[in-house]
Amino acid sequence: DDVGVSTANMTDPYALEPRRHVALKPASKTPFNGEPPLSLLVEHLITPNELFFVRNHLPVPDVKENEYTLEVSGLGVRELSLSLADIKKFPRHTITAAVQCGGNRRSEMVKVRPVKGLSWGAAAISNATWTGARLSDVLRAAGLDETNTEAKHVQFEGLDLDPTSHPFGASIPLWKAVERIGEVILAYEMNGEPLPRDHGYPVRVIVPGVVGARNVKWLGRIIVSDVESDSHWQQNDYKGFAPNVDWDTVDFSKSPAIQEMPVVSAICDPGDGETVTLVDGKINVKGYAYSGGGRKIVRVDISSDGGASWREVETLESDAAEHPKAWGWTLWKTQVEVPKGTKSLDLVVKAVDSNYNTQPENFENIWNLRGVLSHAYHRISIKLK
Amino acid sequence: DDVGVSTANMTDPYALEPRRHVALKPASKTPFNGEPPLSLLVEHLITPNELFFVRNHLPVPDVKENEYTLEVSGLGVRELSLSLADIKKFPRHTITAAVQCGGNRRSEMVKVRPVKGLSWGAAAISNATWTGARLSDVLRAAGLDETNTEAKHVQFEGLDLDPTSHPFGASIPLWKAVERIGEVILAYEMNGEPLPRDHGYPVRVIVPGVVGARNVKWLGRIIVSDVESDSHWQQNDYKGFAPNVDWDTVDFSKSPAIQEMPVVSAICDPGDGETVTLVDGKINVKGYAYSGGGRKIVRVDISSDGGASWREVETLESDAAEHPKAWGWTLWKTQVEVPKGTKSLDLVVKAVDSNYNTQPENFENIWNLRGVLSHAYHRISIKLK
Ligand SMILES: [Mo]
Ligand SMILES: [Mo]
Repeated sequence: DDVGVSTANMTDPYALEPRRHVALKPASKTPFNGEPPLSLLVEHLITPNELFFVRNHLPVPDVKENEYTLEVSGLGVRELSLSLADIKKFPRHTITAAVQCGGNRRSEMVKVRPVKGLSWGAAAISNATWTGARLSDVLRAAGLDETNTEAKHVQFEGLDLDPTSHPFGASIPLWKAVERIGEVILAYEMNGEPLPRDHGYPVRVIVPGVVGARNVKWLGRIIVSDVESDSHWQQNDYKGFAPNVDWDTVDFSKSPAIQEMPVVSAICDPGDGETVTLVDGKINVKGYAYSGGGRKIVRVDISSDGGASWREVETLESDAAEHPKAWGWTLWKTQVEVPKGTKSLDLVVKAVDSNYNTQPENFENIWNLRGVLSHAYHRISIKLK
Repeated sequence: DDVGVSTANMTDPYALEPRRHVALKPASKTPFNGEPPLSLLVEHLITPNELFFVRNHLPVPDVKENEYTLEVSGLGVRELSLSLADIKKFPRHTITAAVQCGGNRRSEMVKVRPVKGLSWGAAAISNATWTGARLSDVLRAAGLDETNTEAKHVQFEGLDLDPTSHPFGASIPLWKAVERIGEVILAYEMNGEPLPRDHGYPVRVIVPGVVGARNVKWLGRIIVSDVESDSHWQQNDYKGFAPNVDWDTVDFSKSPAIQEMPVVSAICDPGDGETVTLVDGKINVKGYAYSGGGRKIVRVDISSDGGASWREVETLESDAAEHPKAWGWTLWKTQVEVPKGTKSLDLVVKAVDSNYNTQPENFENIWNLRGVLSHAYHRISIKLK
């Protein structure tokens, strides 16, 4: 019943990849990773499925609904095997949640010093509504014993397999899975449609407020455990380090796996280096802001003089959810007045979340060898005509 | 039964203030606000009661245990009147939690431009164990109707009164009061002893991970409500604003009341401007780091060249609680090697929390007219001999 094997055993494991929208610019093709143009991304509070950034670690498995089974096992639970129909029998729960890659905006951090990782722009983040069963309902249906103090993590395995037939894997802390404010769901709908294959058909975990890598797609197995997933991506990737740590000195056991992500923002329109036509001495500027852990964006500040002076952006748009369940992103827009005769502008944006967390000013002091957590102020230069 | 009146009605409302430890340096005397020396503060993971910083907004009420009553009322609850003995009948719950003033480290932000507020150093934070009844248990004993969707906040009133007999007040969101991971307690013990008068005798709310101002002392009343507290301190104080907002343009209704606070750190020993004697070419450096919202400190970085290069501090000490219930602070220490002939050093510290939140580098871009949320890198200069 391990349906991923059908692709991994083929001569070309990437022969059965889904088609992608032409607007998705590939950061890599096998596995496929792609992001939409920034200006298109921020046209929609809810990203259309076909424009949602794609981050795959392995070939996309060709899962058939009638063969699909989700296995549940581990500490303090009975073993369950659930079909898609079984999962749909649990109460339907819908949330709006952004998913962000741990490496979003890596291409800016790289300018300080090289890092290892896909060269993502600022569009390795998108926002959707997700409908599915609450993970907490499924775990309680499996008889989860909440008095079992050994159980500390919930591990997920995908049906996507590496060349040695090991699945993609990740884990989250148990509290996130069971507490009401965690709101983790086993999603089978994305924006009201069955999940597209690139986004985990038929079932993906949505761990709202948590780095994309834990939102396991093509979900095959849930394991309640005393330990985190032993997968490469949990243990030896998606972790932050101090700027002086390099590949000779790094000890991945020393840093925690990234879960909730810090506050971030980006200017999406105009784009860096663009020439913009003034209208009535003004330009329109648009972008997004996001914070992990269910924190809401409470303020976005913009500077049009490279960060020397700031003012608050007037218009923020988001779904209605409030802290600590504000899983979605916030779109912002403003008009910048341009003094006559100005030939170029240095625009900078920074956001503040509902914990009053702020962004770091520059990448130098948050540089890390994997190029993750790349959340410094976003700076662009534009020309005017 | 409003026992605070006995002091407010006297000619000198400050005639009945408690004695304070001589080490507490006053930021103001009436009301009393004082902080201990930084070097003394970080000698103890759990701050001794007499050294715990004191932040009073009004005269300290002279509350007698046999006259004390806590009133509970509001949306979706039955009215309760609880004596101290009644409160002690609820299951005892003990947590370790730091309490930090919203204005901690204000004296550094002031160097950018003046602000309104007490001139706190970096010691308007301390760490204690607190024992009391869970607020959620008390609300459930009052029959809290969790299906009442109008109830959104829990307001607190102190028995400390302003000159017009209005009490100190604050509120927190209802989720923080009722969810298991909120861990709000009505504390009657501090480090195993009855609360000292300066810290809220006989009962204080401990809202762990949340700015000190919501941790209401001399607790007289709890009100479940559809709205936040209308107190000055909730509505027109303890809020953050963009750096361009001044007292002519500020609209306090536009920013959310500070609740959970961002990640912060400080170098406590040696002190800024001190002359330090080298031992074997090294100096010892100690400090604290803290993050609100139950986030744990996962890394502290130190620079001895003014921020040009960084390395991770080796030794972190904290209580055992983990994210998202890591309410205590973290003490850190390290040795800095000093090249021969060095006459002075610029030390800088920054911390990272379990959401990988980082501190802003400087105060310029987080400056705000009230001087709150003053959490930029902590920088000191020392001389060597
Ligand atoms: Mo990712
Ligand atoms: Mo405060």
